[in-house]
Amino acid sequence: MERIDILKELVEKNDSKILLVVLDGLGDIPSIDGKTPLEAAKTPNLDKLSKESALGMHIPVLPGITPGSGPGHLSIFGYNPLKYEIGRGILEALGVGLEVTENDICIRANYAKVEEKDGKLIVNDRRAGRLSTEENKKLTEKITKEIEEINGVKIFMKSGIEYRLSILLRFNEKVNEDMCDILETDPQNEGKEVISPEPLSEKAKIVSEVLKEFLLRVREIIKNEKGNYLLLRGYSTPPIIPNFSEIYKLKSLSIATYPMYKGLTKLIGMETVKVDGFSIKDEIDVLRKNYKNFDFIYLHIKKTDSYGEDGDFMNKLKVIEEFDSYLPEILSLNFDVLCITGDHSTPTIMKSHSFHPVPLLIHSPFVFKGLSERFTEKECLKGELGTIKGEDIISLLLAHSKKLKKYGA
Amino acid sequence: MERIDILKELVEKNDSKILLVVLDGLGDIPSIDGKTPLEAAKTPNLDKLSKESALGMHIPVLPGITPGSGPGHLSIFGYNPLKYEIGRGILEALGVGLEVTENDICIRANYAKVEEKDGKLIVNDRRAGRLSTEENKKLTEKITKEIEEINGVKIFMKSGIEYRLSILLRFNEKVNEDMCDILETDPQNEGKEVISPEPLSEKAKIVSEVLKEFLLRVREIIKNEKGNYLLLRGYSTPPIIPNFSEIYKLKSLSIATYPMYKGLTKLIGMETVKVDGFSIKDEIDVLRKNYKNFDFIYLHIKKTDSYGEDGDFMNKLKVIEEFDSYLPEILSLNFDVLCITGDHSTPTIMKSHSFHPVPLLIHSPFVFKGLSERFTEKECLKGELGTIKGEDIISLLLAHSKKLKKYGA
Repeated sequence: MERIDILKELVEKNDSKILLVVLDGLGDIPSIDGKTPLEAAKTPNLDKLSKESALGMHIPVLPGITPGSGPGHLSIFGYNPLKYEIGRGILEALGVGLEVTENDICIRANYAKVEEKDGKLIVNDRRAGRLSTEENKKLTEKITKEIEEINGVKIFMKSGIEYRLSILLRFNEKVNEDMCDILETDPQNEGKEVISPEPLSEKAKIVSEVLKEFLLRVREIIKNEKGNYLLLRGYSTPPIIPNFSEIYKLKSLSIATYPMYKGLTKLIGMETVKVDGFSIKDEIDVLRKNYKNFDFIYLHIKKTDSYGEDGDFMNKLKVIEEFDSYLPEILSLNFDVLCITGDHSTPTIMKSHSFHPVPLLIHSPFVFKGLSERFTEKECLKGELGTIKGEDIISLLLAHSKKLKKYGA
Repeated sequence: MERIDILKELVEKNDSKILLVVLDGLGDIPSIDGKTPLEAAKTPNLDKLSKESALGMHIPVLPGITPGSGPGHLSIFGYNPLKYEIGRGILEALGVGLEVTENDICIRANYAKVEEKDGKLIVNDRRAGRLSTEENKKLTEKITKEIEEINGVKIFMKSGIEYRLSILLRFNEKVNEDMCDILETDPQNEGKEVISPEPLSEKAKIVSEVLKEFLLRVREIIKNEKGNYLLLRGYSTPPIIPNFSEIYKLKSLSIATYPMYKGLTKLIGMETVKVDGFSIKDEIDVLRKNYKNFDFIYLHIKKTDSYGEDGDFMNKLKVIEEFDSYLPEILSLNFDVLCITGDHSTPTIMKSHSFHPVPLLIHSPFVFKGLSERFTEKECLKGELGTIKGEDIISLLLAHSKKLKKYGA
């Protein structure tokens, strides 16, 4: 039996409230003065909380494996990240802010420059001269205005970075993977003819027809633009992931400023909420207004990762200190269980996600406590939780909130 | 998805170089003065390195399971030792120095003393009076000179310890397991008739015929010797193990003085090299001459295990000190990632392999470091790696050498 099935069987609803704070890319390795940002930061409130909490490290996927944001998050939500995968097309759609449902096929697309020769469309530039994000936005809005649906299938589009965009076909019923068996249209080399999105299976025919008509109309609409055609690839359906709120019997809210995290949590069955602004303060405001109505709240703080990716030690440290300053306010809301962790490490000297274990703190009345002095990588290594799988976190949070019955008689 | 499949998908070739030093049977438990050999040894260079490295313990198979050399090594090379097994026949053949290919059937054999009675061969002594290793060698050479092939199948033989030897049948094409469905010929009790190697399946017939003819000729050749017949058992084909160098995209070299380790690493796809002599110095000489041409080098040091098996604390300690003295030279070769560990523990007071976790050290630019003072069992328990599976080691070495792409978007 899978862990998730065991939890589903054991979980009971009660009044306990859980707050899971994910500081994206939180983990780090020593760099400036031999310290990590968590070590160098002044965090009086986290220090105090650490002494009263269970600390440890978690490994989101497997030792040595660097998780993308998808697997990192699935893991901390209790899903085996090797079993449940979210395709890149889906994550990109979520990332640009498209809402993805089980009726949707997501497509990664980009603007290209083509030329008609003897009735054929020849690709001159696969990225339309690296079209700017601004030009992309204009073009995409223009197309969106003209094409709302084709053959009863709703079309949604949203521009991304530079020449990239996401397209979503919304059907009237649940889609399946076979419907995506369609040729990608990028010929991969310039000077070659655009490939037609032909179906490779019976079930894909209906999608193929929509795409052919869509491309004809797109070509008409942007014929005279710098990016005068669209290349399509990465057709994907949403993964079948058990509903978080249903499995764990948790009325769940996701508080996130970045569309990808909002989209991902919505996809797995959490409620989402609008955050006015992008600061930690803005998110705490939303938390304060909403916490009474939910059993479980996921609060995502993005900037630790962004500064990690930039290699910006001092600003990563400042985000941690800023979070620390809001901790008293968070504690005043009296969650029964508070968990603070990351979805993966993003060491500033590596400027990228990494495979390193991620600091983890669980505050509840039922901990050994007293093993760690601070919430840092090394102090977490001394903690009572040891180094566990990311997947273990949800079990522990449910257990600490007394939502899990005994297993077996 | 199996770990090995994930790694295969994520691994990318780059210029980083990895050195994996395996001190066979390294781990121990306290004995003389309450210390382990690693604790009692003077190891100034390892001490210094430990402070700059990630330390931990690894469990080759499962807690409580004592690994043989096969599973111990498969595990540290990243193979699930419960899935991939190397038969005893194969390991013994490798151990006596026979090279095993995918075209070979390996057979464990021993000299016996038989007597002809009413046309039957009756076993008088199943071990030919515990024939000496020296006598074994002479007899085996005699047979080898006379029998080179039978029905187009090449025959290789090599004497082992006392009355034991390995026989290898080399076919012209890949063999399969079904060909080994043949009766073992040892009647298990003295005074009983030798069993004929009859086939139990259609595919085994060809092998059975070769063996019958082989035994007839062997009997002729050694009729008047102390060991005057051969008993056959443990027919086995080489296991299908994914090629190490191909999966991990590593140009790999194995440096080992003992045939079994050389054979095992060759079997899984590493290059091997001749070492002139048996000392650590001889192996370091080979390392220095070859390291530039490889991405991954496995260096095997046998004597820690041999002295462990002998219960010889002081000599196990001296091998550790000798290795320590070569560490500066090893470090001067500037491998990007250096790993020092064992394939299992061989506590001197147990005089055998044991189930205890094995000390593990990884030196790379991407470690927390500073958690352990020395490379000893107890200091390794304080380390940042925690107690991990043997299988995790290769993932970590690939990760530390930046050879693994991110998993998932």
